[in-house]
Amino acid sequence: MVDQCAQSGEDNRSPGIPAVRWDERPEGPVLVLLDQRRLPAEEVEVVCVDAPALVDAIRTLAVRGAPLLGIAGAYGVALAAARGFDVDEAAAALEGARPTAVNVAVGVRRALTAYRAAFAAGGEQRQAAEAAFAAARALHREDAGASARMAQHGLALLDELLPGSGYRVLTHCNTGALVSGGEGTAFAVVLEAHRAGRLRRLWVDETRPLLQGARLTAYEAAGNGMAYTLLTDNAAGSLFAAGEVDAVLIGADRIAADGSVANKVGSYPLAVLARYHHVPFVVVAPMTTVDPDTPDGASIEVEQRSGHEVTEITTPRVPVAGAGGGIPVAPLGTQAYNPAFDVTPPELVTAIVTEEGVVSPVTAEALAVLCDRSRQVTI
Amino acid sequence: MVDQCAQSGEDNRSPGIPAVRWDERPEGPVLVLLDQRRLPAEEVEVVCVDAPALVDAIRTLAVRGAPLLGIAGAYGVALAAARGFDVDEAAAALEGARPTAVNVAVGVRRALTAYRAAFAAGGEQRQAAEAAFAAARALHREDAGASARMAQHGLALLDELLPGSGYRVLTHCNTGALVSGGEGTAFAVVLEAHRAGRLRRLWVDETRPLLQGARLTAYEAAGNGMAYTLLTDNAAGSLFAAGEVDAVLIGADRIAADGSVANKVGSYPLAVLARYHHVPFVVVAPMTTVDPDTPDGASIEVEQRSGHEVTEITTPRVPVAGAGGGIPVAPLGTQAYNPAFDVTPPELVTAIVTEEGVVSPVTAEALAVLCDRSRQVTI
Repeated sequence: MVDQCAQSGEDNRSPGIPAVRWDERPEGPVLVLLDQRRLPAEEVEVVCVDAPALVDAIRTLAVRGAPLLGIAGAYGVALAAARGFDVDEAAAALEGARPTAVNVAVGVRRALTAYRAAFAAGGEQRQAAEAAFAAARALHREDAGASARMAQHGLALLDELLPGSGYRVLTHCNTGALVSGGEGTAFAVVLEAHRAGRLRRLWVDETRPLLQGARLTAYEAAGNGMAYTLLTDNAAGSLFAAGEVDAVLIGADRIAADGSVANKVGSYPLAVLARYHHVPFVVVAPMTTVDPDTPDGASIEVEQRSGHEVTEITTPRVPVAGAGGGIPVAPLGTQAYNPAFDVTPPELVTAIVTEEGVVSPVTAEALAVLCDRSRQVTI
Repeated sequence: MVDQCAQSGEDNRSPGIPAVRWDERPEGPVLVLLDQRRLPAEEVEVVCVDAPALVDAIRTLAVRGAPLLGIAGAYGVALAAARGFDVDEAAAALEGARPTAVNVAVGVRRALTAYRAAFAAGGEQRQAAEAAFAAARALHREDAGASARMAQHGLALLDELLPGSGYRVLTHCNTGALVSGGEGTAFAVVLEAHRAGRLRRLWVDETRPLLQGARLTAYEAAGNGMAYTLLTDNAAGSLFAAGEVDAVLIGADRIAADGSVANKVGSYPLAVLARYHHVPFVVVAPMTTVDPDTPDGASIEVEQRSGHEVTEITTPRVPVAGAGGGIPVAPLGTQAYNPAFDVTPPELVTAIVTEEGVVSPVTAEALAVLCDRSRQVTI
């Protein structure tokens, strides 16, 4: 069940509303999401009172971004537990909401494990629900900490790769506070450079079909006072050719054991362009995005989304609606190919930046060492 | 001065209305354009009675596409002459309407030369105007013939490059009957393959920011009964990686003497992807697009268009309007980088197909030979 409430008008551009928050209300706890589908025009919150509402919010991208999906997934389990729903059923539904993003499953399993462990230790429903919530909250806090450490590692890497210059960074999709318990992944690095006075310009790919770059990254860049310029995904090639890009920084939705990176569709073409122009291509993601159980890029299931996202333009402002709820831009009956993600092989990735450190060159061995270190820290 | 008249509803998908036609009316001749801004939703004609109206139609992309711009430019001079306007002034305004597309200037000069020659031979205004019109009509017919010959040369080239298979062709922007006196450039080759039963699929890049692929190429592909699939420009990389693209076929707005190709923004990234995946990258354009006076890619002036094309989505159906007349998709005040074209260097172009034959590998010498041959034919 979903409830919505508008928070403020379109002239409030400060990213002050958290992307996700747990709210204890008299009638029981709820999970409150900033509705990312309606940004930057409106800041509206979606209130989820059960897991199905959250699954719907995840599928329709009201909440999105790999790390945040993990946090939302964990809270979703806690919500089901706190409200007395079937926790296993909720967990399964949440895990299946977006198949490519491994973080959902990581978050869900963490809260579920805590929930089951509390029962196994002789606890009652209330204690188990509290354990699930504590696990979700811990993940939320850890992600904020991871974000800060990724920012530091990432800026140090830029300083090493590109000594003595301000950086013109190209980014794709959205990787800031809207995807994270902290300030994000790739965007957190950009923000760190901005605060250190070393960001010359952020080039923002609009990121079709859902325009997360135009709608969300531009919103976060503006809110942070950055020098940024928006471009169509098509225009990135011209920037590379003109020598206007010093580095590409993107996030990830899943990193396979061999270092293959699944990220928003359009990332792979940028990796090929970056290689052709000898520009570093850097992936920034928390360790929760690294999935040792996925051996390689070919094993990553890429989510295929509705063709309506391509054949129609969707915006909450427009009353004219086609079959998918948007404005038709292609002839009726046009079939569209609409993978949500693509996979970049490790040989095109200059470095992977995590909260545990940087992997460069990207190899299965180096990633495994980092995973081991991360596991020791968690234990 | 522009007048508009709706021709038919949205369910008429046959590309039967010519993109440009000269109409002798009781009050004097007019140039009638199919308004490409409103396709595929509506088939509406724009009636131009003078050169300024045509310049506006060119700038706002009611009429577009390199070969067609040449034809329109020539008719524009003829129109100014027939209606007794200042022909030199009209020619200068038309030539400046879109700086990257060399065909406009070629068409304009051809009609202007005929106009002046008639005067120099002792003719009067009426004869000179008729000479300008005859030159425009000749260019129109020649372009239709060139289109047919490009289609044949292009299909022969595909057969040579990719023997024994049906073709999965990726294209960008729009290059069919809507840009030509005939069936177009790259699209004419695709159509030839389709008619010969050798087109397995046409992959249609949507082509942001103005979605000429989604709106126009999909419309022409549907009208011709092709197997086609639309995709965001971002998704092309995934098709290459999956081995789903046998060849890339695009048009051109200007080809420099060294073989550098200016075409719709997003063409260059496709060329880099094609090279990385060892897929042929073929440019199809009439000889009027080859400009011996532009020595190389760096000498091509790339038209920069309004950022509103990126920060807003424009569609004739929608009443909600931002500063650029569209639906805002980025925060207010967002700056956008919006080059209309990009430049692909000759080393990334597998072949250039013209009505005079195919240049492959693409070198200044081979292009010069073709230009000489073309000049002999014209003389």
